This record gives sequence, C-alpha cells and structure tokens, in this order.
Amino acid sequence: MELWRNRCVKAAGKRGPVIATVLKSNDNAEVEPLCDRYARVRGLTLALAAPLSDADSTIQSMPDASPAKWHLAHTTWFFETFLLRDRAVGYRGRNEEWAFLFNSYYEAEGPRIARFARGLLSRPALVDVLAWRAQVDEAMAGLIGRDAETDALIALGLAHEEQHQELLLTDIKHALWRNPLGPAMWLSEGRAPVDLPSTGWWQHPGGIVGVGHDRPGFAFDCEEPAHEVLLRPFALAQALVTNGEWLAFMADGGYSRAALWLSDGWDRVRSDGWGAPMYWRERDGGWERFTLGGWQPVDADAPVSHISFFEAEAFAAWAGARLPTEQEWEALAASGDANSGRQLDVAGPVDPVAEGAPSLFGNCWQWTRSAYVPYPGFRAAEGAVGEYNGKFMSGQCVLRGGSCATPRGHMRASYRNFFQPEKRWQFSGLRLAKDI
Amino acid sequence: MELWRNRCVKAAGKRGPVIATVLKSNDNAEVEPLCDRYARVRGLTLALAAPLSDADSTIQSMPDASPAKWHLAHTTWFFETFLLRDRAVGYRGRNEEWAFLFNSYYEAEGPRIARFARGLLSRPALVDVLAWRAQVDEAMAGLIGRDAETDALIALGLAHEEQHQELLLTDIKHALWRNPLGPAMWLSEGRAPVDLPSTGWWQHPGGIVGVGHDRPGFAFDCEEPAHEVLLRPFALAQALVTNGEWLAFMADGGYSRAALWLSDGWDRVRSDGWGAPMYWRERDGGWERFTLGGWQPVDADAPVSHISFFEAEAFAAWAGARLPTEQEWEALAASGDANSGRQLDVAGPVDPVAEGAPSLFGNCWQWTRSAYVPYPGFRAAEGAVGEYNGKFMSGQCVLRGGSCATPRGHMRASYRNFFQPEKRWQFSGLRLAKDI
Amino acid sequence: MELWRNRCVKAAGKRGPVIATVLKSNDNAEVEPLCDRYARVRGLTLALAAPLSDADSTIQSMPDASPAKWHLAHTTWFFETFLLRDRAVGYRGRNEEWAFLFNSYYEAEGPRIARFARGLLSRPALVDVLAWRAQVDEAMAGLIGRDAETDALIALGLAHEEQHQELLLTDIKHALWRNPLGPAMWLSEGRAPVDLPSTGWWQHPGGIVGVGHDRPGFAFDCEEPAHEVLLRPFALAQALVTNGEWLAFMADGGYSRAALWLSDGWDRVRSDGWGAPMYWRERDGGWERFTLGGWQPVDADAPVSHISFFEAEAFAAWAGARLPTEQEWEALAASGDANSGRQLDVAGPVDPVAEGAPSLFGNCWQWTRSAYVPYPGFRAAEGAVGEYNGKFMSGQCVLRGGSCATPRGHMRASYRNFFQPEKRWQFSGLRLAKDI
Amino acid sequence: MELWRNRCVKAAGKRGPVIATVLKSNDNAEVEPLCDRYARVRGLTLALAAPLSDADSTIQSMPDASPAKWHLAHTTWFFETFLLRDRAVGYRGRNEEWAFLFNSYYEAEGPRIARFARGLLSRPALVDVLAWRAQVDEAMAGLIGRDAETDALIALGLAHEEQHQELLLTDIKHALWRNPLGPAMWLSEGRAPVDLPSTGWWQHPGGIVGVGHDRPGFAFDCEEPAHEVLLRPFALAQALVTNGEWLAFMADGGYSRAALWLSDGWDRVRSDGWGAPMYWRERDGGWERFTLGGWQPVDADAPVSHISFFEAEAFAAWAGARLPTEQEWEALAASGDANSGRQLDVAGPVDPVAEGAPSLFGNCWQWTRSAYVPYPGFRAAEGAVGEYNGKFMSGQCVLRGGSCATPRGHMRASYRNFFQPEKRWQFSGLRLAKDI
Repeated sequence: MELWRNRCVKAAGKRGPVIATVLKSNDNAEVEPLCDRYARVRGLTLALAAPLSDADSTIQSMPDASPAKWHLAHTTWFFETFLLRDRAVGYRGRNEEWAFLFNSYYEAEGPRIARFARGLLSRPALVDVLAWRAQVDEAMAGLIGRDAETDALIALGLAHEEQHQELLLTDIKHALWRNPLGPAMWLSEGRAPVDLPSTGWWQHPGGIVGVGHDRPGFAFDCEEPAHEVLLRPFALAQALVTNGEWLAFMADGGYSRAALWLSDGWDRVRSDGWGAPMYWRERDGGWERFTLGGWQPVDADAPVSHISFFEAEAFAAWAGARLPTEQEWEALAASGDANSGRQLDVAGPVDPVAEGAPSLFGNCWQWTRSAYVPYPGFRAAEGAVGEYNGKFMSGQCVLRGGSCATPRGHMRASYRNFFQPEKRWQFSGLRLAKDI
Repeated sequence: MELWRNRCVKAAGKRGPVIATVLKSNDNAEVEPLCDRYARVRGLTLALAAPLSDADSTIQSMPDASPAKWHLAHTTWFFETFLLRDRAVGYRGRNEEWAFLFNSYYEAEGPRIARFARGLLSRPALVDVLAWRAQVDEAMAGLIGRDAETDALIALGLAHEEQHQELLLTDIKHALWRNPLGPAMWLSEGRAPVDLPSTGWWQHPGGIVGVGHDRPGFAFDCEEPAHEVLLRPFALAQALVTNGEWLAFMADGGYSRAALWLSDGWDRVRSDGWGAPMYWRERDGGWERFTLGGWQPVDADAPVSHISFFEAEAFAAWAGARLPTEQEWEALAASGDANSGRQLDVAGPVDPVAEGAPSLFGNCWQWTRSAYVPYPGFRAAEGAVGEYNGKFMSGQCVLRGGSCATPRGHMRASYRNFFQPEKRWQFSGLRLAKDI
Repeated sequence: MELWRNRCVKAAGKRGPVIATVLKSNDNAEVEPLCDRYARVRGLTLALAAPLSDADSTIQSMPDASPAKWHLAHTTWFFETFLLRDRAVGYRGRNEEWAFLFNSYYEAEGPRIARFARGLLSRPALVDVLAWRAQVDEAMAGLIGRDAETDALIALGLAHEEQHQELLLTDIKHALWRNPLGPAMWLSEGRAPVDLPSTGWWQHPGGIVGVGHDRPGFAFDCEEPAHEVLLRPFALAQALVTNGEWLAFMADGGYSRAALWLSDGWDRVRSDGWGAPMYWRERDGGWERFTLGGWQPVDADAPVSHISFFEAEAFAAWAGARLPTEQEWEALAASGDANSGRQLDVAGPVDPVAEGAPSLFGNCWQWTRSAYVPYPGFRAAEGAVGEYNGKFMSGQCVLRGGSCATPRGHMRASYRNFFQPEKRWQFSGLRLAKDI
Repeated sequence: MELWRNRCVKAAGKRGPVIATVLKSNDNAEVEPLCDRYARVRGLTLALAAPLSDADSTIQSMPDASPAKWHLAHTTWFFETFLLRDRAVGYRGRNEEWAFLFNSYYEAEGPRIARFARGLLSRPALVDVLAWRAQVDEAMAGLIGRDAETDALIALGLAHEEQHQELLLTDIKHALWRNPLGPAMWLSEGRAPVDLPSTGWWQHPGGIVGVGHDRPGFAFDCEEPAHEVLLRPFALAQALVTNGEWLAFMADGGYSRAALWLSDGWDRVRSDGWGAPMYWRERDGGWERFTLGGWQPVDADAPVSHISFFEAEAFAAWAGARLPTEQEWEALAASGDANSGRQLDVAGPVDPVAEGAPSLFGNCWQWTRSAYVPYPGFRAAEGAVGEYNGKFMSGQCVLRGGSCATPRGHMRASYRNFFQPEKRWQFSGLRLAKDI
C-alpha cells in the first residue's frame, strides 16, 4: 500500500494533494484518501474471487447472473473506457475486441455480447483478465488526484466496482447452488454469535422530512436531488423478519392462500412452484439453506433472506402489517435512532450465519413498497455515464439498507438499490412497517 | 325507462325513495337516481355491442383482450354473484357452470377458465348471454334501493360495467384490426370539427395539496384514502401531444436512438419492432391508423393515441420535458383551470376523429410517471370484492384523464387507471410536464 | 340432383358425355359420374357443418386445427383458384382479399394469414362463405366434363375436400372439447351394435409384393409410383387394439415405464402429462371420453382412438409385438382377406359408438412404423398443385386404413395418411404386427 | 503401451490370450488386440482434449452440445457403470454423486442432471475428471480378456467413446465459434493438397442386395439384423457436393425459393434466418468459415459441410437430383468400387482444409433421405445398454460415411449415424443420387 501510495503521489506530481473521499457511509464522514480507497476496493475484488478456479469464474447459471470473470473484467473495462481512454495520454487498451465482451449495457459505447452469452467466454482466461486488471491499475495511478472531475469519475468507478463485488457474490452463490455437488466457496468458520432479534418498533411522527443525498461524499445520480416529502406518522420494526417467523408463515399456508398475494405474485407462486425462500431445501424433516459455505441448517433467529418483493408483500399482509415506503425508511435511518448497524466485512470469508444478524443496515437488503422512479427534478448525466441508473426506472422496486455482502463503506441512508419484484437471488429480506 | 323506474320503485316498496348517486364525475354533483343509472349503464353496454355478430362477439385476438360476449357475460356474472346470489331470495342462477366461464380473476370465487381460453367459447351463444342479461336485470329491479349497503354494491357493479364498456371497445378494435379485411365496427360520420391544439402551459405553484377521493359519490377503493402530498412548482401542457408532433419525433429518429429510452422500453422497441404508434400503417407515402370506423388517414392535429408508457417517456425525453406525476395531474385537474374537457358520448358510433379532440379529460388516457402503488393508509375491502384493485398494485403505471371510449360520467379527477408500461391497445396518449 | 346434372350436361355441351370417376375406394371400381360426385361431395361438407353456429364455425382451438368456416372456405378457394380462375372465361372471384385468408400453404399462390390467426376471422361471416360456395358451385357446372385434364383437377379438388371433411370433424371435436360445457355436435342415437373384436392374426408369407397405386381411379401423388418391395413373413392382428386392452396397459404402468417408450415419446409423456388417450377423463371411478355426441362412457370393446404414434409404439412394446410397416399393411389389404371393413357414412350424425367398430378399414387410422418418405421414383407435380404432398415428407409417420370420420369412397388400400408422431386429435388407433 | 499391454496380460492371467477385435472398418479385417485398442482409443480422447483449458472444457454453448469435460467424464462413467461396478470385485466408484452428473440418457440408471445444465459444472474440475479416467483405466486392465461377454461390452464402450470423440470436436467447435474472439483449437498446418473433385457417377444395377452388418467385428445394434432389400437401378455421384457448387446454389436464390424446400425446412429458413451453411460469414466480399483452426477462407473445391438435411434436400431439388437412400449408399459402398476413401487421423490437429477431401468415406457425413427406423426383425438388447440406439428411432434422418472428425477404424459400410433434419453442427454434407 505504501508503494502504491507513493506511486500515486508521484504520478499526481505538482498537482497538489491527493483528494479525499468520504469512506464511511451512514454519513459518519470518516475520510479516506482516494488512492488508498482505489487500492482497497480493487484489492477486495481480487480477494473475493481468490477461491475461484478458471472454470468457476467462467460459468453463468442464469441470465440475471454474470460470471465472476466477467465482473472482474467489466469493472476494469469501466476504468479503461471512461478514464484511461480519454485522459491517459498514450494509454493503449489491451484488446479492442474486449469492449464488445465486457460492456454491460452502455448503448453509447456500442454493441455488446448478448447477456446470456457471457457464460460462453472461456477465453480470455481468468489469468488474462487478472493481467488486464494489473495493467489498468498501473495506468490509473497516473490519474488519481489529477483534477476534481477525474477524481469524481474515479469515485464513481469505485462505487460501481463495489456494486459488482456484491453481485459477484450473489451470482457465484447461484452458480454453486446449481451444481448438484453443492460446493462451498469457502469454509464456514463456525457459528457467529447472533443477537436476539429485538421485537420493538421505532416510531416516527411524520411531517415534512428531507429525502435524498445532500452531504459531501459520493452518491449515485438516482439519490439526487435531495427534496422534501410529507409523511404520515408511522413505525418500523426494530428487527428484520426472521427465518422462524417465515416458517410460521409457511406453516400457516402462506404460499397457498391467494388472498395474501398480489396478483402477479400469485401467478409466480404457481408458475415457479414457490413454497419457501430461494436456496432452501427440506432434508430429514428440517430445512437447510445453501450458503457460500455450502448447505447449512436454517437458523430460526437469523433474518430471512432470498425472498422476492412478492413474498415480502404476502408476509406483511399475513402479519397484519405492510412494507415501508423508501421515504419512511430513509427518514428513520437519518433520524439517528436506528443507525447502529454492525458493519460487516466481506474481504474475508462471509460467515454464512452472518448473512443475518439483526440491524437496520447490513444484514439484508429490505424491500420497500416504493417503485423505483426518479426523484422530483432528477436529470440523467450527459454521455454514456448518464446511462448509469436513470434508464432502469421502470418495473423495479426499491430496496434499502445493505446486506452481509455489501462492502464496508458502500452503505448509506440515501442509497437506493432496486430489483424486479420477482427476483430472489440477492440477499433480500424485509422489515415490517405500520401506520400509527 | 318509465316502466323500469316503476318496477324498481314498486320492488323497493315501502323502503323509502330510491337513492341517488352522483352522475357527473369531475365532481359537478349532478344527481341521477340509481334505478335510472342502472338502466342507462346496462343499456349502453347493449348499444355498444349491437353491431357485433355472434362470431364477432366470440373471438379473442390476444390474451390481454377479451371477447365482447365475455364482457357482456362477465358484467352480468358480477351482479348475479355479488348481489343476487346472496340478497335476492329465491333467485336461481342461470347455469352454475357459467361462473367458471365468466369469473375474471376473483380467487375467492373459485377456479376459472384460463384467460386465453375465453375465445374458445362459441357456447353459450350471444343470444343466450343476452337472455341472461335480461333475466338478471329483471331480478335486479327488486334490489335497487333496498338498503345503503346493497346500493353501494350496485354502484360498484355499474362502475365496473363502465370499465368493461371501454374494454369492450378497445378489445373489439384489436380483434377487427387483426382481420386483414379491416372491417369497421360502424361507419364514420365524417370529420368532426377539431379544435386547434392550444400550445400553452398551465402552471401550479406546488406546496401541500390534497389527493384522492373525498367527496360524496362513487369512487374505487384505490382512490382512497384522500391525503396530502408536497409538490414542487410545475407546469402541464394545455394540449395533448398530437399526431403531427409524433411524426416529427419519428422523423427525428425517435425510434432508433437508444439514449431516449428506458432500458426495458428500448428492449421492447427492438423485440417488437416498434416504429410508430400501434394501429398505424404506411400507405402510399402517408400514414393511416385503424379506427372503429376502419382505416383512416392520420390527422396531424389530433392527439396521438395507442402509445405505450415507454414511448411516452421517450417522446418526453426527446421534447426536453417529462411526464407528470399522478399527483401533479390531479392537483391541476382539481384546481378548476383545466377542467373544461368536452364530454364524449359513446352510446352512438364513436367518431374516429373524435378519438382525439383536445381537453384535459376525455380524449386519451394520459400516462404519468407514477407507478400504481397504494395510497398511504390504503386497506383492501374484505371478501371477494376486496380483490378489486389492490392486488394489481405491482408493475403497472397510472394513467389519468379518460378517453373517447370512456363512458360519460365515469371520469373524475381522482380516477386512477393503470396498465403495464408496454401496453398499447388502450386509447393512451400523453401530456407533457415540466419543472418551473 | 337431377337439376344439377342437367345443368352440368348442358354446360358441357357438345364436348361429350360427362366423364366418370371411380367412386368406391378399396378398388371395387363402382363408377360414379363426375357431376354426381361433385354434387355429393360438396353437399356432404354442407351437411357436416349444418349443426354449427356462426361462432362455432369461427373459433380455432389450437394451431393444428382450423375453424369449420375456414374449411368451408378453403375448399372453395381451391376450386376458384385452381379451376375457375384460369379456365372459366369471365369468372370473377368473389373477393381478391380472400385468397390471403383461405390459402392453406401454397407458397406459389402468395402470402397468407398466419396459421393460428385463422380463428380471428369473424368476417367474412358464415353466411358469406356459404354464399361463396354456391357461387363457385354454379360456375363449376360449366367446367365439369370439359376435358380430361380439367376433370382430373376437379377430381383432385374433390378428394381434397374429402380430406377436409374429416379435418372439419376432428377440428370441431377439439374445439367443443375445450369448452368446459362439453357441448355435443349432434345427439348420439344410442348404442350401435359393436362386433366383438376378433382375436386372430392374418398371416402373409412375405416375398416381393407390389405397393402403391396402379389402377384406374383417383389417387394422390404420394401413392405413386407403384413399385415392388421385398417383405419378410409377417402377421397382422385381425382386430384393432381396444379400449379394454388400453386400460390394461394403463393399469400395468404403461405411462410410467420409460423402458417402453421411444425417447421423444417419453419426453412428451412427461412434458404434456399424458396418462390416458386424448379426450379421456376420469369421473366417478370410471373413464369417459369426449365424442361429437358429448361425454360418453368408455366402451371396453371398441377400438382405442386418439392416441399418438408414441403411445402406439409403447403399447406394442408392452404387448410384445410391434407396429406394421406401411408396406406390410398394404400388402395384406390388397390380398383380399382383410378387406371386409364396414363402410361408415358420416353424412348423418356420427354415432359416437361407431367411432370404433372393428375392421381393417374404417374405424381408426392405424399408425405404422413407416416414416412418410417418397416412393422410389417419386416426382412432385409442376406448379402450385405440386406442393400437395411432397413437401411434407419429413418428420411425419404414415397411417393407413381410414376412420369413422373418413368419407365413404375416400379410403383405399394404397392411401397414405400422415401426421407427426405426437399428434392425437385425429381418430388414430393401432393394429399390432409380428414376425413369423 | 508395452507396459499397459503387460499389465492387461498379467491381469487376464491364465484366462487365455487377449481377444482381438476388428480394427479397420470398411471390413478390411485388420486385427488389433483389445488391450491395444483400449489404450489407443482412451488415449486419443485425451489427446483431443489436450489443448483445452479448465474453462474451455466446462462451457456448453447449446443444449445439443456437451462440454468437453462432460464427454471425458461420461465415457468414463460408461466403463465404471457397465463394466467395473458389476464385474470388478472390490472396485469402488470415485463418487456416487457423479452418476447423476454424467449419465447421458439411460433411464434404467436413474435420474440425471438436465441436459442444458451440463455447462454449469465447474466442479469436478478438469483435473479431477482426468484423475478419474486414470483410475478407471487402471481398474479396466483387470477386465480385458476375462471372457467374451465382458470383451464385447468393452468393445461397445470403446465404440461409444469413439462416437464421443467426434462429438467432443463438433461441440467444442461450436463453443469456440460462439466466442466473438474466434479462438482456434489448434493451429492450421497450412493447406493440404486437395484432390480435385471427380465429377462422374457410380452406377448400380439394383435388384436384391444385402444390407446391415453380417461380418465379424463390432457393430451397433441398429445395424442388425442383416437383411435383403429390393432396389431399382440408381447412380451416386463420385464426389461430394463442394463449396463452389453451394455458392452457385446460393447465388441462384437457393435460400429464397420456397419451391425447392420441404415445408418444415422452409419454416426453418425463415425462423432461423439461414442463408449459408453454418459457420460461414461474409467478410470483405468473400466467405469465410469457422474451423478448429479459426476463421479460414472458404475453399471452393472442398466438400460443403455443416448443412442440415433440409438444405441437402433443397440443394438436390435445385440440382435436379435427389438424395440417396441409406440402402443405396450401403449397397454401393459394399460393392467395392467406391471404397477407396482416404482415412484421416484426428489424433493430431485436424487440418481445417482436410474437413473436405473427396472420398466416399471420411470427409463429411452424408445425409440420406432415409428416416432412422428399425431394420426388419430388430430387437433392442435387454437392460440399460438396450437403450443404446433403439429408443431414438423417431424424427431422425440417417447419415452415412463418416467425417474428418470420425476416428480411424470407426467407419464401416453398415454404419448408421442419425440426427434430426435441422441439425447443422455436425460435419454433415451430401452426395447426390439419381435414378437410371
């Protein structure tokens, strides 16, 4: 790290001190220099992929998921395309054909391989992609701290890479799960202590509250502009819904009572045969769930995860409650009362039990009943980077919080994650809300 | 009508005067007795179906659409099931197997025929369904005015039937369009005068405004509870976007520039080959559109119709504007300035030109950028009728206003229509909005 | 008929006597004048469609099937297109757009409506199609007997119409079956006497035998050229497999033992959930089957029908026998021993029991293990008519015999019917064979 | 090899000399000891897979194709399951879960992974599969020469492995082709000399000829029983159809004239957009084709390959000829005149030019117009091995000859290869036939 920092400082030359970016989300305003942050984020991606073989990193188990090798390459393509290509004098891309392979969805950057064909790329090999990462990192040293606009773009690239760190984990989990051998990504290190779920409610008086990002530090475009909304009084559960509560829902016919479900959700129950959260199976009279540490017994006290929005809605109806809106969630998160979540670090093996310790942040992404639509006054940025979030604002639901697989420093109260309502392969759970 | 009214009054007996329901939407509070309303609404359905043969009324041209005969039967099933079955002593349903055929989506009412199999029902014949309508109407005379709860349920049945009147028209239009012969439902009566589109903007100062239904008169469950929201200042275009403006969008590459589109919309452009609004075709260097009066030239001054939410969004991006939210739309509609729409009567032949005279209400349903989600404090009603709207609150966009095919008296400022963002077979257009 | 005959004779004028065509198949060489045959065949089509309403005749219940109205129109289109258009001076087609609607698959005759869209044609109405039939018949009177080539083409048109008579029945049966009300096409006239199935075998010594059509009278192109083949000694069962035998197969796990099935057949069993012949259902502990006379109990002594080639193969494997080849079937049919089938007349209501009296001809089409490939020396005819059979020679299996729905005079020993191996909506059964 | 042979001899012990199997197909009756044959065949599989990485060997590019690693494992599973499990005392399978992964289609051997999920198996890794192969080979040394029945089963296992050698090549070719980088499996060694195509015809007088396997040496079950058929006089082209001739077909509108095509073929042309053989692309005004040596110019003199049955039929119709029947092909191949094909060895890199030197055997598999049906008197073997060929006898066409990827010694005159008529990823071409 020392070496890297020196290289960055030297490359930045007379252009002044390396700029700082806000590290800790939740707005604690801890400061981390950008060059350190670059090294840390890029290094974490490598650490996460370390247990994977060439073949593990190549396969794609469904169109929603991408191969690990693809995540390694795509995040690198981002820096090469949006930073080095235009700003690093004399930089030569590794292979101009690779842009076709590793562009995700940027129409402005030209055509790209069909999404489901990502799993057909045995070449370039994992080792070739790792070499590319090293080459790009080397060249990036010369850009960090050059000017504010460049640094902002680098910060975007790093936040983007952190998103892909989580996706790398959710996607490889799916791929390993599809293998009948049930291989583990890493060994479980035994049972972590699980805090007993609290059962109380946090109350909020409603009124006009501020929503959206309005502080120093990085945020995605969709978190802006900050604005005010009018809320009614409400309460949020202090604990996430647990596996034990979910088992009660199942035992009470939760998956067979149409009246609990949205119409599209009920169709999905029948067409896809849902009867339990994703990654669960029944064995010897009990339930197991697949984790990155292989198959494990279901822990009744841990938060339920890998459920769809439709399931979350049905559970809430069964429980006589409802899902929060994203504005309610954020208002409470910003109020300070609920902001004591334990931060998890996924640089080491993810503890399969830790996929569920109770907290407002950091265990599961929490479905809200809010559709992912633009904030008042939202404008997409110009150019290819403007495709970042805005163009996905249809057909998706907002999730708030962050999960056990979300990198440290990537969560914040204004963060808006989003997925289609039927998706289940993310670490997604729910927190109940009610009117007061 | 006199005869019918007497029969109702006599059936209601000593139980007091026939209750009144609010006829005019837009809250003008014109009062129409329920028995008159019943006769008028049920009669309009018959009038709309009058030009259709047995075969016309039987076919189904896509899963989204239903046969006209099915609409005639389903609206009748509603009265038989939710009113007569439980409240009319001694009433015997026509055929207990028909419930399986004509239930739409009420899970609480048991299984039903697959949606796309509705077009396979050559039996019962049109004449049998018409006889059933007469039998049900006869029995209903004895229920009108019995008590407030019954009358409320009848009012719901009539509002429900009005919804199906519009669907009957949109669905048969689709079916006739699929016929290469391009048959007309009725003759066009020649060009109606079209008001020139106004080009100004209605302005609204924002602030806290009331949204939702809070007056006497009928409303659907999803329009409640009334509540307050906080708006920024905004403006709405006084005119709907016209065909002429749409042709300019097309000429400027609107359907081939990915940057204008939501991601899901752009996928749809390519998968479905969209290049113009639905029902348009190019002939001899010009554009024609299919109407209930057959193929007609596209009128540049008329509002564009039969576009999807995705197309509306792309047009707004191209025009440097945006779609309104449903709250903005309602706030302006309730403000009185914009409330001068010409009401159309579809009891006679729909004038194909009249599918487009400018007004806030009554020409096309107008896509908003609001997802169809529950209002704060929304609770679905108990029982089967509770399935009415709430269970569709995912994956749909709100439309406001009303169209040339919406029955007189069925529109109001708080009305929330909703469809999936890719649907185009409704009379759906757009009105631009902007921040001020 | 007298009137019609006079009109034909008069129209034929001095051109000589009306030519005769062979009426009876099975080569009994009974002679029927062509003008009589024309009137009889065209009239039978009308008689078959007589019980159908406008809506009945319009609907299409699956892509394989066509609406009855379409059959009525397509057979008429055949005469207008291939006879009247080129040979009747001054004849004007009813509507040039109709060719697009009623061409089945003749590429040389231009584009046509997608197969599954046939069920969307509420217009032209049934009454319009019937008027067209009358107009064409009137004009055809002037062509019959004009010259040998014209008469041969007319004979082809009539054989073609007879094929569609059977399809009209199989297709409307499917449509009525899809209706949950289970409507009957006509009333069953009670139980017909069923001959007890014979249990013996017809033996054939093998050797060089002739196959294919080589006599006077009409045959389709695929039955030619006649040629010789070398057969081993074999035997064919004198009776078709019965429903009772099929129930034994079912009871013995026939639908759940993979080893009995061809691989593609076993896939189909699982994907389509086959567990009994098509049109069967279990009621009150017994089995019923749907017939043109509605739902009827399964008669154990009647031949099984509505089974696929895959099911026939599995049954034969279970029974320790095999299916015959089409050459074996024809060799035996031509030998005279097996040729005593009772001819059925479908001009009146089809007796639902008669869908199964035992005979070599006339109960069910019988699957053979022969693929539908060209005979040695086969050449398709020139022009559009050449598309008649040759282009379907891939992926289909040959059936021999004829069914209860095959018109009198349309069966013959050389006749090759063909369908894909998974089809079940035809009146298809099986006759066992074995080596000796 | 010497070492291996000693081990086998020692293992066989007193049980007599190692039995011999016929090596050369085409019935030249060259004798190769079974232990040598085992070592040679198993070794060739390894040699073919040698250029592949862990990831290359894991991916699956379409359901029809299997991963190379799967081929390596499945052929090994065959020996473990059908030989070692029952006959090698004390043998322990490597991993009982692997049977679920590597069973292809043997219903009698229990359930198995869905075909398309074969590409999700990053574990076991390639190195694990290679270790398994070594373990099985070691154990097999003790079975070779034990008794005639065992040796016959081993010979079946080796013939089975030879089939998978060809599939390994056709499948990895498809996978590499799907990679936009167009990677080569091995380097092309430059242009091999191509014999000019001969243009004459081999004539055959017809009459009664023998068909099927009736000599010493190995054959698959479907090649038996040998029997006699009656043929008309015919001729076969001495040369396969070349790329140059195919270009002429294309230039003459071959892919756009419906009249040339079978109906199912024409549907496929339109649905799949066929306009040239598979693996062809247009570049800079000329045509290239993808080979295991990467993209290469199309050589006009080489035989065309990678065409479907439907394309072969259309070409033959265009050329005024037809495809041969499989009986004609075999009759001529057995006559000695045509039996001078150059044998190719694919143990070294396949020469991409050599995918096309003219000969009756060994360049491309040749589509016949014969459906794959059982020979008269065919009976499937008992047990799981009986699933070998018989259950695929529907919906497939016979190909004869052998290709550049068919192992030396695996071709013979009676060999019946078979694929569905639309498949193109095999090395499949055509040889014309005509009546004389």
